[in-house]
Amino acid sequence: MKTYLDCIPCFFKQALFAARTAIDDEAKIKEVLDRIGLLVSEIPLDSTPPETGRQVYRTVREVTGVEDPFKELKKENIETALKLYPALKQTVETAEDPLETAVRLAIAGNVIDFGANPDFQLEQNIQEVLHREPAINHYQAFKEKLECAQNILYLGDNAGETVFDKILIETMAKPVTYAVRESPVINDATAQDAIDSGLDKVALVVSSGCDAPGTVLAACSDQFLDCFKKADMIISKGQGNYETLSNEERPIFYLLMAKCPIIARDLGVKVRDTVIKS
Amino acid sequence: MKTYLDCIPCFFKQALFAARTAIDDEAKIKEVLDRIGLLVSEIPLDSTPPETGRQVYRTVREVTGVEDPFKELKKENIETALKLYPALKQTVETAEDPLETAVRLAIAGNVIDFGANPDFQLEQNIQEVLHREPAINHYQAFKEKLECAQNILYLGDNAGETVFDKILIETMAKPVTYAVRESPVINDATAQDAIDSGLDKVALVVSSGCDAPGTVLAACSDQFLDCFKKADMIISKGQGNYETLSNEERPIFYLLMAKCPIIARDLGVKVRDTVIKS
Repeated sequence: MKTYLDCIPCFFKQALFAARTAIDDEAKIKEVLDRIGLLVSEIPLDSTPPETGRQVYRTVREVTGVEDPFKELKKENIETALKLYPALKQTVETAEDPLETAVRLAIAGNVIDFGANPDFQLEQNIQEVLHREPAINHYQAFKEKLECAQNILYLGDNAGETVFDKILIETMAKPVTYAVRESPVINDATAQDAIDSGLDKVALVVSSGCDAPGTVLAACSDQFLDCFKKADMIISKGQGNYETLSNEERPIFYLLMAKCPIIARDLGVKVRDTVIKS
Repeated sequence: MKTYLDCIPCFFKQALFAARTAIDDEAKIKEVLDRIGLLVSEIPLDSTPPETGRQVYRTVREVTGVEDPFKELKKENIETALKLYPALKQTVETAEDPLETAVRLAIAGNVIDFGANPDFQLEQNIQEVLHREPAINHYQAFKEKLECAQNILYLGDNAGETVFDKILIETMAKPVTYAVRESPVINDATAQDAIDSGLDKVALVVSSGCDAPGTVLAACSDQFLDCFKKADMIISKGQGNYETLSNEERPIFYLLMAKCPIIARDLGVKVRDTVIKS
């Protein structure tokens, strides 16, 4: 997905939120915004939003000196999700179609997002997503693809959401490689967050090699690109991965909640709609 | 009121909205945002938001070549308000306290704002504001001050709202100087908009000499500053005038609806609350 002009005010909003989460120093936070200001003219509109997001969050880290502003929030979200795990697991196991329920839960977990959606309500959202029809629903294609898939690449998104991903991976019962960001960016999951969520018990956890809040292939490691090429099914979680991969010709299934009006418009859905898209 | 860090993303949002209203050329609109980007580091946080707003809307005019992007919208809003005039006038005349009703109506008209509030619903808002207690209510002080005032300066805000101001001025039945912006900025009223609203029939219409979306005293004409100094009562409409004058030691009454969360916080009220503040 290209960068829309509407993304530009949003980069400032996100930088402000991240910088305020990192430090309590108005002059320094202003310096972050000053530097993002200088970036604007260098944003090509045919690049994807996470390519700029990468620079925005790098600037926040450089100016504030805080490597991972969302560290504590990520930890809390993983803990909250782990507490929900037994009940969610039971919901899946007693469902008429456990796979479908697990897919919906994995999408419900995508509400945990400090980039596009800092004021999320997790538990309320789970019930809503479980009972609402996805606005784009390629679940049948997902199910059929899964039946014959032998080499699944699962692209993670946010810390905490990772626990919901674990439930889907357990329900799929197939060999899965789970890819995370190379280093902290917003509340996206890193290898440590994946391990803290127990994903190393059910999948091979790898890094994409990239520190963007998405999967910018040009910035990914050779090892990851090899996984990406060889996978016979790719499950892509969240907005950032969709934004960076939506033009790729690979067997990708996007599972996400549309949290910003721009992505919603790009997908032809409404804000808060859920999507299972091949 | 100082510029808060939250104002910075909002300047981009406003520039985008104004540029899109002016032209349909993505590259040019991007150029507007590029130039606003370069402005960020020059914004002192101890300046008021309209001081930067002035530069933002100047940039929109310079890059798009459109002097008054909101010209048609302003015209429509004045026409809509003029159609409502007879009914509003009757509401005031049949009210228990016509002055209080006229003040509330003048605040209701402040909802017409393409800077902070492009998706306003005028008629619905009128009813709401008429029947809801202002969150800050210095109406008694307003009424008392008005009784002895002989030289009232009324600072206009948006085109269309001007018609509501006319009703209040008629109800006050005192000599009034009505000040407007020197040239078009957002949908703020200029002299022509004031005349189109019939304000020249009930007040002396003057320009502030300033093209900011507020009253930046340092940029106002000597003639206006003279009025400002000599007035024994100043009625200041809207957010922009509040932002630029809130630290002034003059007998000012601010009539406004808090349309952005930052001003609401500054005033200690909620978004959409109405305010009569001395």
